[in-house]
Amino acid sequence: MKPYDHISLLTDYGTADEFVGVMKAVIADLAPHARITDLAHHVPAYDVRAGSLMLARCIQYVPRGIVIGVVDPGVGTQRKAIALEIAGGEGILIGPDNGLLAPAAGMVGGVERAVVLNNVALHLPAPGSTFAGRDIFAPVAAHLCSGVPFDELGDAIDADLLMPGLVTLPQIGDTEIISEVTWVDHFGNCQLNVGLEDVATLLSGGSLLLTIVVDGVARSATIATAFALIPTGGIGLVIDSYGMLAIAKDQDSAARDVGVGVGDQVILRAGEAGQVSTAVHIGKKSASE
Amino acid sequence: MKPYDHISLLTDYGTADEFVGVMKAVIADLAPHARITDLAHHVPAYDVRAGSLMLARCIQYVPRGIVIGVVDPGVGTQRKAIALEIAGGEGILIGPDNGLLAPAAGMVGGVERAVVLNNVALHLPAPGSTFAGRDIFAPVAAHLCSGVPFDELGDAIDADLLMPGLVTLPQIGDTEIISEVTWVDHFGNCQLNVGLEDVATLLSGGSLLLTIVVDGVARSATIATAFALIPTGGIGLVIDSYGMLAIAKDQDSAARDVGVGVGDQVILRAGEAGQVSTAVHIGKKSASE
Amino acid sequence: MKPYDHISLLTDYGTADEFVGVMKAVIADLAPHARITDLAHHVPAYDVRAGSLMLARCIQYVPRGIVIGVVDPGVGTQRKAIALEIAGGEGILIGPDNGLLAPAAGMVGGVERAVVLNNVALHLPAPGSTFAGRDIFAPVAAHLCSGVPFDELGDAIDADLLMPGLVTLPQIGDTEIISEVTWVDHFGNCQLNVGLEDVATLLSGGSLLLTIVVDGVARSATIATAFALIPTGGIGLVIDSYGMLAIAKDQDSAARDVGVGVGDQVILRAGEAGQVSTAVHIGKKSASE
Repeated sequence: MKPYDHISLLTDYGTADEFVGVMKAVIADLAPHARITDLAHHVPAYDVRAGSLMLARCIQYVPRGIVIGVVDPGVGTQRKAIALEIAGGEGILIGPDNGLLAPAAGMVGGVERAVVLNNVALHLPAPGSTFAGRDIFAPVAAHLCSGVPFDELGDAIDADLLMPGLVTLPQIGDTEIISEVTWVDHFGNCQLNVGLEDVATLLSGGSLLLTIVVDGVARSATIATAFALIPTGGIGLVIDSYGMLAIAKDQDSAARDVGVGVGDQVILRAGEAGQVSTAVHIGKKSASE
Repeated sequence: MKPYDHISLLTDYGTADEFVGVMKAVIADLAPHARITDLAHHVPAYDVRAGSLMLARCIQYVPRGIVIGVVDPGVGTQRKAIALEIAGGEGILIGPDNGLLAPAAGMVGGVERAVVLNNVALHLPAPGSTFAGRDIFAPVAAHLCSGVPFDELGDAIDADLLMPGLVTLPQIGDTEIISEVTWVDHFGNCQLNVGLEDVATLLSGGSLLLTIVVDGVARSATIATAFALIPTGGIGLVIDSYGMLAIAKDQDSAARDVGVGVGDQVILRAGEAGQVSTAVHIGKKSASE
Repeated sequence: MKPYDHISLLTDYGTADEFVGVMKAVIADLAPHARITDLAHHVPAYDVRAGSLMLARCIQYVPRGIVIGVVDPGVGTQRKAIALEIAGGEGILIGPDNGLLAPAAGMVGGVERAVVLNNVALHLPAPGSTFAGRDIFAPVAAHLCSGVPFDELGDAIDADLLMPGLVTLPQIGDTEIISEVTWVDHFGNCQLNVGLEDVATLLSGGSLLLTIVVDGVARSATIATAFALIPTGGIGLVIDSYGMLAIAKDQDSAARDVGVGVGDQVILRAGEAGQVSTAVHIGKKSASE
């Protein structure tokens, strides 16, 4: 099999410090032929769940090769550092065994082989044990790119014993769906854990209007395929680039306007919101459609 | 002609999310030999004009190849996705037809050929239409690097019908120049839309002092070739790295001190500011020169 | 000797603007074969000392090649632009002569040869003199990668006359150590300028508890090898990835909790903090150990 030559990185290291740069320097030193792609480094600090969802969103677009994920509050403790073979050997996920890697692995068919990274000959010597990205994950990924076989990374472990990821499913009823915000992006769009097919039963007579209820406040929201198709000032449920519904506004932050964040509950109901006094001017919105 | 092997990226995607990382993953997957340079990803959200000025500042330094620009509030609507051939085929600009690409194209001699990106065989299939960077621009750029000819990207269109960019010109009078802040950088330097030659008539007798008026408040400002040559605490008009005048301070933010932002009007007049009470201590400043 | 093919970058340019992107575009244009690693670009603006410490932390991990450092408030003045040969020619440091490069050079055995970058044939022509990263440092690094010999970069200078870096040493007494915060990272960990060996005499009877005094307030702190081993809510002194002690908390910001920043004094004393009223609940902490 052709050696790997691509390493993707996803961390909560941020970019204020040299953490990511040093990981990349270590890789460039040990595997100069390996190309590195920064998927993201601004996972909220310690937020394993947010990182796992982000990695799951990325995984289908990542080229053949290694993916290092680091959201690792347990670094330096007995939590295991692991590598997971996925997709018929087309990919290797490397990171802590804390659920970070599990949803991504699940997205592409599950884990085929798993090892604990306890072959310390492949690690960097280090004066402290708090930077596994630099001392364990980066050099192990580089060594894989230099032809070290997967099973030399450490002892095989049973993939069924790995820490699972946490994914919240919506509660889909006849008249309402209880969903959750899974992601608020840079633009303030709030992805829900429901897709268009989940809300089909709430849409009748060709209407594209639903009611969203957040913290007891009901607002009308138009299902839309583009941000610019949401009436100005109004709320939309845009079908986002992953096929999920996201609360959105046109050139404005829905998260700020609606006052919603990751993990918050959003109830979806059929039809327009009633005589509820909100910031959304229903009259104007109808007029502009 | 040698195939392209370099893709530069400029977006308003920010780096909180995986948007940029996924675009780069798509490119690395389809065109592993193509090198990617991140020009910038922190264009203010939806700010087509700021993005267009940034791209125009970059364009003369970009290597032969493709440049993808994404500030695209109209994504998913009828706004066209386009590619523009520039500089005798040395460059291709890819992005939305909303004025983002126009000033950069103008900087290097204008558009030579233009196409609408409607050859969907070159796009990625996508569950939603809100992420053209991933689904259209990145794969099209990668395919160009893999040898797909420009005219296979889609139907030719008349470059004269493309959305123009908006550039504000200063009003240059005999005794004053009415200028505008075009850019506030990370350090708080405020670039104006005038260069040294524009203010030459305001400088007499070898003086390098001008008066700047912002919001009715007049301040003295020294023309300088380096930040460290601006008197401590005072205001300078530094000749910036693009040859424009920028309101600046030595190791401090002029934007914060003067209270000025992008699009604000700045009036330039000859000589020092008069008996105006400001935060600038004119006596001390003169003394330190 | 094999030409250099790797350029690492460390700057205070931030990523809001295109500064870093344009530097990389210039390098990619002049030396397409050179690989670029971004070490960090968020050194606090103008903070030469912070940049110098960061570069010193990175240097041992950087691959053979060029390192450009830019924290350069004196850009465009008479401050010298320099290149330093280090590590038997395995590395070249490029940047301003203001102390930024000195600690890194010291970390790897000192400067072997030094030149002033006054061969302007290797620079880019520029309309202003405020962007040495683009106009001097990047093209010089690229030319080195294209085979230009070190001594053609400009006139040799005596390395002993270069601006030294500033490193603060702790005052180690019999009963207390007066240390200083050298770095607060993204997670709020506060690195001190002392290592475990420095505090050995303060630890007696196998205790891992010390007292830290900040601004007159004493707190107990547990020496720990991992963040997760610090009692929840309590303060730890973690042995960080550089072997230094860092004030830390488990999944929380010690900088915010303790109210400490770079340059602040931290006094270390033997034993637990006494009957001092602080946010640290000593009883609970002992209970959880």
